[in-house]
Amino acid sequence: MRKSKPLRSEMGWSNRDTITVRGFDLTKDLLGKVDLGGMAWLEITGRLPTPKEAEVFNALLITLVEHGMTPQAISTRLIATCSPEAMQAAVAAGLLGVGSVFAGGSEQIARVLQTALDGRDDAADLAAIAGAIVEDHVARKSPIPGIGHPIHKPIDPRTPVLFGIAEKNGYRGRYVALLEAIAATAEKRLNRSLPINATGAIGAVLSELGFPWRICRGVAIIGRAVGLVGHIAEEMRNPLGLEIWERIDHEVMTNATAGGGDS
Amino acid sequence: MRKSKPLRSEMGWSNRDTITVRGFDLTKDLLGKVDLGGMAWLEITGRLPTPKEAEVFNALLITLVEHGMTPQAISTRLIATCSPEAMQAAVAAGLLGVGSVFAGGSEQIARVLQTALDGRDDAADLAAIAGAIVEDHVARKSPIPGIGHPIHKPIDPRTPVLFGIAEKNGYRGRYVALLEAIAATAEKRLNRSLPINATGAIGAVLSELGFPWRICRGVAIIGRAVGLVGHIAEEMRNPLGLEIWERIDHEVMTNATAGGGDS
Amino acid sequence: MRKSKPLRSEMGWSNRDTITVRGFDLTKDLLGKVDLGGMAWLEITGRLPTPKEAEVFNALLITLVEHGMTPQAISTRLIATCSPEAMQAAVAAGLLGVGSVFAGGSEQIARVLQTALDGRDDAADLAAIAGAIVEDHVARKSPIPGIGHPIHKPIDPRTPVLFGIAEKNGYRGRYVALLEAIAATAEKRLNRSLPINATGAIGAVLSELGFPWRICRGVAIIGRAVGLVGHIAEEMRNPLGLEIWERIDHEVMTNATAGGGDS
Amino acid sequence: MRKSKPLRSEMGWSNRDTITVRGFDLTKDLLGKVDLGGMAWLEITGRLPTPKEAEVFNALLITLVEHGMTPQAISTRLIATCSPEAMQAAVAAGLLGVGSVFAGGSEQIARVLQTALDGRDDAADLAAIAGAIVEDHVARKSPIPGIGHPIHKPIDPRTPVLFGIAEKNGYRGRYVALLEAIAATAEKRLNRSLPINATGAIGAVLSELGFPWRICRGVAIIGRAVGLVGHIAEEMRNPLGLEIWERIDHEVMTNATAGGGDS
Repeated sequence: MRKSKPLRSEMGWSNRDTITVRGFDLTKDLLGKVDLGGMAWLEITGRLPTPKEAEVFNALLITLVEHGMTPQAISTRLIATCSPEAMQAAVAAGLLGVGSVFAGGSEQIARVLQTALDGRDDAADLAAIAGAIVEDHVARKSPIPGIGHPIHKPIDPRTPVLFGIAEKNGYRGRYVALLEAIAATAEKRLNRSLPINATGAIGAVLSELGFPWRICRGVAIIGRAVGLVGHIAEEMRNPLGLEIWERIDHEVMTNATAGGGDS
Repeated sequence: MRKSKPLRSEMGWSNRDTITVRGFDLTKDLLGKVDLGGMAWLEITGRLPTPKEAEVFNALLITLVEHGMTPQAISTRLIATCSPEAMQAAVAAGLLGVGSVFAGGSEQIARVLQTALDGRDDAADLAAIAGAIVEDHVARKSPIPGIGHPIHKPIDPRTPVLFGIAEKNGYRGRYVALLEAIAATAEKRLNRSLPINATGAIGAVLSELGFPWRICRGVAIIGRAVGLVGHIAEEMRNPLGLEIWERIDHEVMTNATAGGGDS
Repeated sequence: MRKSKPLRSEMGWSNRDTITVRGFDLTKDLLGKVDLGGMAWLEITGRLPTPKEAEVFNALLITLVEHGMTPQAISTRLIATCSPEAMQAAVAAGLLGVGSVFAGGSEQIARVLQTALDGRDDAADLAAIAGAIVEDHVARKSPIPGIGHPIHKPIDPRTPVLFGIAEKNGYRGRYVALLEAIAATAEKRLNRSLPINATGAIGAVLSELGFPWRICRGVAIIGRAVGLVGHIAEEMRNPLGLEIWERIDHEVMTNATAGGGDS
Repeated sequence: MRKSKPLRSEMGWSNRDTITVRGFDLTKDLLGKVDLGGMAWLEITGRLPTPKEAEVFNALLITLVEHGMTPQAISTRLIATCSPEAMQAAVAAGLLGVGSVFAGGSEQIARVLQTALDGRDDAADLAAIAGAIVEDHVARKSPIPGIGHPIHKPIDPRTPVLFGIAEKNGYRGRYVALLEAIAATAEKRLNRSLPINATGAIGAVLSELGFPWRICRGVAIIGRAVGLVGHIAEEMRNPLGLEIWERIDHEVMTNATAGGGDS
């Protein structure tokens, strides 16, 4: 006979008269009192945020909501065209792109920062640590997460604003400092513009707020879910999915039948 | 030659120095000034909410974030167990369940309410309209969306609180009144307890806020995305996915090999 | 105390030495003896197909595998660009488009056909039934599923071939005849070319094979899953996702900043 | 002005009268002549398989179709319960679990094997290569992919059958031999039973067939898509999703409210 492990969860439960969420009574303690950003904090950490935490966390959450016609937004619009009966499918199709290449990378830089500072006290030599991190990535020919941007050069305009909001609320500490040291070292070592990008800034500030690196991608997922619902709302007013599909289909067919099989 | 329709979108775009979201400068106008709920409103409607709108909308958004071990939360935990490298896949797996049966139903009731009141002035006889709606559903043997709950009887505790927040801010109007008339009529006609459930309340209040019914499911999708990230955070601390899988697998195997092939 | 319903499934189970799939020993009875199409039949029906059934079913399964740069294929390529670490996410993103508009429609026509002929004997007057179906759809201003195609006119070239394979194997019966009657009636009634399309042919022949309408979309899902893996394989050799994204993003940005905010 | 790269694809296209798939005329060359496994081969490789290739490839494809109530099958059933209007969403929810932990691992072992033998001739010393691979994984405390199984010990019954089918058709070569050497070395080095599992066997035989390691997970995705449609078909006859959900929800609620918040 198999021995069962009891299933226990602190997320929530309900009975006839009450709904409990992370120990709070939803109708008495939360509805009308907590906003969506505070609810996200509660879900992930198990307690409500202080006003300072809420200000910083909401700034991080909204940064990645909207970036125009991203691959994720295009996918959401195409799938909304195919499956209009299931909006959840269209949002999910776009969310699946919050991966290692676009938008999901705050996990990677937070891992680097948290691993590097784990167990170190405040006297740690950040320049030396940054140097070792850069050399390690160069040796493995691996890109350093959190720095560099194809368009926003020499500065990603989101980064100083996010660091400013963090500083104002007391959350600009050694994780931010280490990331700054990494970017500075890498720019010198690789001799090109490598600004801290928004994903990097989010990973560093989430580390300041105490979020384990493994959960950091969740912040991008939440923000992008909001943005993709926005794209569906626009797609309902102004459909682009069909035009995008037909145009690509037409070009591929034209190129294929023109005998240009050089691909 | 195929004629292209130009692709135009008002969602957002960026250049080297700025990121524009729905006409606002992300770094100057939004970061540190708007919370995640306000950002969701902006994405869907194209303008920032008033404080009253923001209070009501945030209450609607957080209502569906967490309801314990829903089918969606279980799916997310199972897929997180299988694909730990891709958190976005686990969240998407759960979100796909925000459909017609669980959590997605505010679309259905908002459609009923908006269709019924479309083009009617304030003098419309809500009791007569409600009666027609109930009879139509009874005749088609179709369940009436937005009313009834397996557990929360005779009252879904979220409904009066949501209606109260709506009222306080000036958004308790004829959509809410029509839904109340539908529930009262249906209870009498079908002789059983049919409280307005949270999904129904959300659909009615979103209608008061001016949201087209087609986009209403998006509010559940956003809220549930937040909640599913919360479940992944707990799954990282306290894994349940493996136990759930092994237990079900074991029971099915035991029942199958015991010769009980009567299913 | 809640009373549990025992969980029973006939799909499969395993112990140390054997894996049982729908009552067959995987290693002794299936590996090397059954192809993927036969396995799909076994999974859905619980028995192995006859050679005739296998020929017809494989033809249906492969019809929808590949149709070039569909919205689904584009989504899969975009998500593969974003999340290269998770191929399953890219395939899922495309599969989510096997909905009511593209590729998923065999469910709808099979429902019409099976509902219409349920309980009728062979003497049923198909012309009269077809007439009633057409009039019902015209009255509801609802498109008739399974007929009409934007490109393949006046004949969808797949339809006569699929019906020929069905006929050769003894599966061209009254469901096919009813669909032909519907198409002929609708062409006359609506005075335009309305060929039976591939989706319609698949729905009719699946009905001949005894598949309940509710499962018919599964045939499109299986076929399209195969095709989307093919697109990922090409994307690895010849990446298009990035170019598609950048081109659309660039056009939207150019149109937006040119002051042409007329969308 | 941005310079566009022309979009070219060899997957397929269509005009009024024909549908071309990988250079073949779908209706003349493929329908009724190629089964689903052959179509999968064509999609991935660009040519039709030989009979020997088809036999081996179909065996690999069907191996992972069904393994009972896997986490993926449970997710598919739960999402089918929530979103019955969108079968594609339920299949996608399960497919998302074809990741690094369950079923997706043939990619990992194929990578190890192909990387190790890249550029080596037949005289390569497989025992030495295997030894280096095992030591490398032990040093990094990383599990060796493709070997070991929680239940199927000391032999995964699928492995010798798959290798036998490969051998009979001339596809048991040095990739299989290297994997056997790895398993034997690891068993000695780690002093426990580490049979080549089905995923490992699939990765090795796909390598023999010439599949690049990056595409190997696609074989598991195709097979599992077939199996998940099978689970939905059973769920329609014999619903388990609701019982699974209610049972877990009930247990979690009972444990939570019993004051046992020790999780």
